[in-house]
Amino acid sequence: MTAFEPTPRNKVRRLPSRAAYDDKTIYAIIDAAPLCHVGFVSDGQPFVIPTQHARVGSTLYFHGSPGSRLMRAIESGQALCVSFALLDGLVAARSIFHHSVNYRSAVVFGSGRKVEGEEQILAALRAFAEHVLPGRWDEARPPSPAELRATTVAALEIESASAKQRSGPPGDDPADLELPVWSGVIPLRTAAGPLESDSDQPVPPSVQALLKQQSA
Amino acid sequence: MTAFEPTPRNKVRRLPSRAAYDDKTIYAIIDAAPLCHVGFVSDGQPFVIPTQHARVGSTLYFHGSPGSRLMRAIESGQALCVSFALLDGLVAARSIFHHSVNYRSAVVFGSGRKVEGEEQILAALRAFAEHVLPGRWDEARPPSPAELRATTVAALEIESASAKQRSGPPGDDPADLELPVWSGVIPLRTAAGPLESDSDQPVPPSVQALLKQQSA
Repeated sequence: MTAFEPTPRNKVRRLPSRAAYDDKTIYAIIDAAPLCHVGFVSDGQPFVIPTQHARVGSTLYFHGSPGSRLMRAIESGQALCVSFALLDGLVAARSIFHHSVNYRSAVVFGSGRKVEGEEQILAALRAFAEHVLPGRWDEARPPSPAELRATTVAALEIESASAKQRSGPPGDDPADLELPVWSGVIPLRTAAGPLESDSDQPVPPSVQALLKQQSA
Repeated sequence: MTAFEPTPRNKVRRLPSRAAYDDKTIYAIIDAAPLCHVGFVSDGQPFVIPTQHARVGSTLYFHGSPGSRLMRAIESGQALCVSFALLDGLVAARSIFHHSVNYRSAVVFGSGRKVEGEEQILAALRAFAEHVLPGRWDEARPPSPAELRATTVAALEIESASAKQRSGPPGDDPADLELPVWSGVIPLRTAAGPLESDSDQPVPPSVQALLKQQSA
């Protein structure tokens, strides 16, 4: 395990007890998040665009259409910030003030580059497919040369990052514990299915595994 | 229904058939999203911070600790961008190239301000509580004067916005339809429970309604 050094850019200032800077914690959140939100600056205006990602080591990959604003921003090499968040539960306290949510979040800083070369692009596309549906790459038809040319892949090297998370029960004030108000956590999770098949082929192992995992 | 005029700032450039600019579509996505990602610029560096929100009309509300970087950025009146995304399903095509996701997303532009006055702050706090757990406000102990002083509420007036969404089956190439590869949509949804009670009080209507809705 290594850690990203807390600097003014990535330091969590509020509730520092919820903060983490080690790559293991941060990468687990990135990998568990199906989507991320990429922030960049254009003419002084911030833009935040939701997109899919994949991580290989300390590199984040993004893909899109050539010429999209997001892909051009990543390829330009400018400073970026990428945000990830997973909502794990609603925390209902006896007081409105102590209502909260259980969550895992990560904020990542770095700058981007265009990924070039057929082999590197293929590796990134495999990472995208495997991120959301492990095993899918080997089940489906691989990209053709024309499809590869129609896809832009960009990468961001993670320079700095932090995680912030909350778990556990509500933090009610001792004076409120006798109030006749229910309190507790309402856990939230992602459930998958029922399938909407577009094919009479058997449901493949990748999809079966996801259904099994997400309905557990 | 009114619409936000497409301008260079909010115009969806890629796959414009997936774009919408009407407030009804955009507000429904904002209201369905439990979290958002707020982008701002500090010393030329973009920051994107995940947080909770509530919407009242064309106003977005945020809350946090006084002095947090996010709250200070919103209160400063600088240009902001807020991103919302809901993942509705994985779209598994016969080809890797046509793999996609079904989603609803919105990107909002505006500038922020501090919310002042006890009545206005209380109204915003009620909107936060009702956003994630409708009915909860009347079940729990309301904020005390000291708690109100410990909470900062900021608002953003939505000046410009766009939505982008995808739904429906995979868009396989006709030439791929005979491949022996399963294709279809794996719907994803948020499931709630089982409850982790921190109280021997009965489960209140707000929580019962959420469980009923999210397990359906």
